[in-house]
Amino acid sequence: MPSKPFVLSVKALIRNSQGRYLVIRRSAASKHNAGLWDFPGGKTDPGETLDGALIREIQEETELRVELEHVVGAAESDLPDRKVAYLLLQARVLDGRVSLSEEHDDSAWVTAGELAKTDLAPQFRNFVRSLAEKR
Amino acid sequence: MPSKPFVLSVKALIRNSQGRYLVIRRSAASKHNAGLWDFPGGKTDPGETLDGALIREIQEETELRVELEHVVGAAESDLPDRKVAYLLLQARVLDGRVSLSEEHDDSAWVTAGELAKTDLAPQFRNFVRSLAEKR
Repeated sequence: MPSKPFVLSVKALIRNSQGRYLVIRRSAASKHNAGLWDFPGGKTDPGETLDGALIREIQEETELRVELEHVVGAAESDLPDRKVAYLLLQARVLDGRVSLSEEHDDSAWVTAGELAKTDLAPQFRNFVRSLAEKR
Repeated sequence: MPSKPFVLSVKALIRNSQGRYLVIRRSAASKHNAGLWDFPGGKTDPGETLDGALIREIQEETELRVELEHVVGAAESDLPDRKVAYLLLQARVLDGRVSLSEEHDDSAWVTAGELAKTDLAPQFRNFVRSLAEKR
């Protein structure tokens, strides 16, 4: 039995000047995890660099301009036809105000403690638990 | 000041049938971390998929044929001109015996506990500590 392909998705924990993190809610029309909260980011396009892809996705989804700071974790989701490997990077806001695309219908800036209680896409729940324990 | 680019490197914790993990020692001629132990893997080439790159690197470095199983962690190293973001995946051996290229000069199969005491490249030390705590 051939194993499923792994695809890469890069996600950002965007921190504001108050140390809160940005979460955005997947719209009702989302194919996966509709109505659940998510981090900005997404798949790298062919030939795209890691940071180029993440900065582009953040701009498309939130209109924020950010600087990527550090790798903060990894996660995985198992879909019927593939596995998604998530790499999570912390980023800080350089400028801009959150303005969502049609992919998301709400946004919030939450503390690390609140993140652990947020109704996030299931693949990120272990990660945010370990983040809350570290603080 | 522009921030450094982030480049992606994919590394494998290859598990054998005894539950031991493969580490390989970087040869004296290595540009970074010469003489330290490492996990098989490396950078994705332009246009290459995550799993394609990792399976190719493992084959080139060890001649093992593996199946990728799960995302197990992330790490980072800060070089003068760039940051490397590491995504670590667990893999299992399908077939083959370890045969090293010129990039490495020794190999060993170690337990998770031994991994924490191995003289690994510094970017993986936090990761193996947390791995040992989980077992």
